[in-house]
Amino acid sequence: MATIKDIAARLGVSISTVSKGLNGASDISEELRQTVLDTAVEMGYSTKRSRKVENRKLALFIENMNYESIDEFGYDVVLGFKQNAFKHKWDVDIIPVTPQLQAEEKYDTYILKNGYCGAFLVGFALHDEWMQQLKNTTMPTVLFDNYIENNPNVAYVGTDSYEGIDMAVKHLHNLGHKKIAFINGSLFSLVSDQRQEAFENSMRDAGLEIYPELMGHGYYIPETAQYYVSNFIAAGATAILCGSDTIAKGVISECQLHGFNVPNDISVVGFDDVKFAAALTPPLTTIRQERNDLGRCAYIILNSLIHHIPISRTQLRPMLIERESTARVSTAHAAEE
Amino acid sequence: MATIKDIAARLGVSISTVSKGLNGASDISEELRQTVLDTAVEMGYSTKRSRKVENRKLALFIENMNYESIDEFGYDVVLGFKQNAFKHKWDVDIIPVTPQLQAEEKYDTYILKNGYCGAFLVGFALHDEWMQQLKNTTMPTVLFDNYIENNPNVAYVGTDSYEGIDMAVKHLHNLGHKKIAFINGSLFSLVSDQRQEAFENSMRDAGLEIYPELMGHGYYIPETAQYYVSNFIAAGATAILCGSDTIAKGVISECQLHGFNVPNDISVVGFDDVKFAAALTPPLTTIRQERNDLGRCAYIILNSLIHHIPISRTQLRPMLIERESTARVSTAHAAEE
Repeated sequence: MATIKDIAARLGVSISTVSKGLNGASDISEELRQTVLDTAVEMGYSTKRSRKVENRKLALFIENMNYESIDEFGYDVVLGFKQNAFKHKWDVDIIPVTPQLQAEEKYDTYILKNGYCGAFLVGFALHDEWMQQLKNTTMPTVLFDNYIENNPNVAYVGTDSYEGIDMAVKHLHNLGHKKIAFINGSLFSLVSDQRQEAFENSMRDAGLEIYPELMGHGYYIPETAQYYVSNFIAAGATAILCGSDTIAKGVISECQLHGFNVPNDISVVGFDDVKFAAALTPPLTTIRQERNDLGRCAYIILNSLIHHIPISRTQLRPMLIERESTARVSTAHAAEE
Repeated sequence: MATIKDIAARLGVSISTVSKGLNGASDISEELRQTVLDTAVEMGYSTKRSRKVENRKLALFIENMNYESIDEFGYDVVLGFKQNAFKHKWDVDIIPVTPQLQAEEKYDTYILKNGYCGAFLVGFALHDEWMQQLKNTTMPTVLFDNYIENNPNVAYVGTDSYEGIDMAVKHLHNLGHKKIAFINGSLFSLVSDQRQEAFENSMRDAGLEIYPELMGHGYYIPETAQYYVSNFIAAGATAILCGSDTIAKGVISECQLHGFNVPNDISVVGFDDVKFAAALTPPLTTIRQERNDLGRCAYIILNSLIHHIPISRTQLRPMLIERESTARVSTAHAAEE
């Protein structure tokens, strides 16, 4: 691992100049500082964490996820992280990230320049530039719902999708449903892949047939439902499992628009249990993600990484919340079998 | 969830008698105390954890695993757990467990009777009586290398077997090995199942053929090697991947006994990196489990469960430790292909 001396030698400057650059002293130019930082990152320099911990500053980078209103998925995740970090006397900066910021500055450089001891990343997608850089980051980093192979500085935190989807499928199966449709979240995401595999495993374990025409993907927005609901019902689905409560909300509207009653004609299950789920008509049966706990847990795992415990992944238990959007399959449908 | 009042009503005794029974007061008979405890457990009574935390006593139950000498796998796991617990002002009792103890007393009763706030279980097997009871335990419990479905009071801590086995297979493949044999640990264990699946996945990903006659299972003892090594070499294996360093030690002896040189004729890879691995002749290439960190992490997860964060599983990164028991496949073997 490169030392300050190595960086000084490479740049042909003094050790104290490198040190000033790394620590953000005011008596060197911004341009020289950037050169020092870029070189440090390129050479794999990493701060001696246990000594730097007195900074007690963590970054929470957030992209593609709303978190400012209590109704939004990210709200409690951010809150839980901050609550646990504050309790342990860390400061947290919340930093919304755009593709442009990622193009302008390398991930490690940003962390180093701003004196963070580690970061929690929420809402990033696999193709994001910083995600690519995480394969080699030397900064303690916790990712929400994303996984990086073989780098002991990066850990993944999320809800166990397999157990969650399995609870939903078992719940519907217990209510007599056999033709269960699935509207999954966005393609090319770790959790969508997990949930797809989980759905197929659970259906198989329950002895239920998987119909490719009863499965679809879409963004986590209500409009996703429009592409699927009519076709799924026409193909005989009696229940629709959704990748998020937002999609489920769209499914319920769509059913009602076409004159189908939820849950008497069609049962609907969501995922997440965000605030509005209980207030829908009918109130939504869903798989709860403990978002505040996910945030708290992310802090615990980040703190462990900072203390050199190489955690790779941590998953939380989901929970089935039974409300009124699911019911026993109608006798008309049961008779068709 | 049952309260002290419910227990009193069921037994037809006063609330203060139940309270005395639960708290181990000296002025009720041992027999009545046991009845109170058994009833409390049967009715799903659980102590109000956040209030009871002033006890600050944790149990570390250990079975089928040696931990008293620094050479043994369990030593650092136990040490790491105790170190982190002590640092956070918890007392830890180390309790060796026999099948007899499990038959005599229910898991929850034992915990409740002795005033523990939670427990870490190491070395238990799937068929153990207490393992069965964990499906419904209300006590915060962390299991090493074992997983319980659907109970938010129980979490699993272990090393990521998939990444570990993949590192080993890639390492051997990079050295030109194609016929790679695998001696896995005991059957009917979660980690053996994971490693078996991991081995087959990794071989497939590397484009290597899997030979059923080059795979075996056995106890984590050197003698396991005797059943396999000659046959594997006769069948053309040029490398043997082992489920533990102890098995690998037996494999090296067995090779030498039959006149084969490690690594010139046969490469050998272990798993764990216990203390003796570096001292073998030749020093063993192996997949390191950070045992002290596993113990530290188990404490962190147990403390999270005690604070009602429903962690389901946490895995640590393995690390490939390259020593001299692996080498480039011999040209004689390479020519055969």
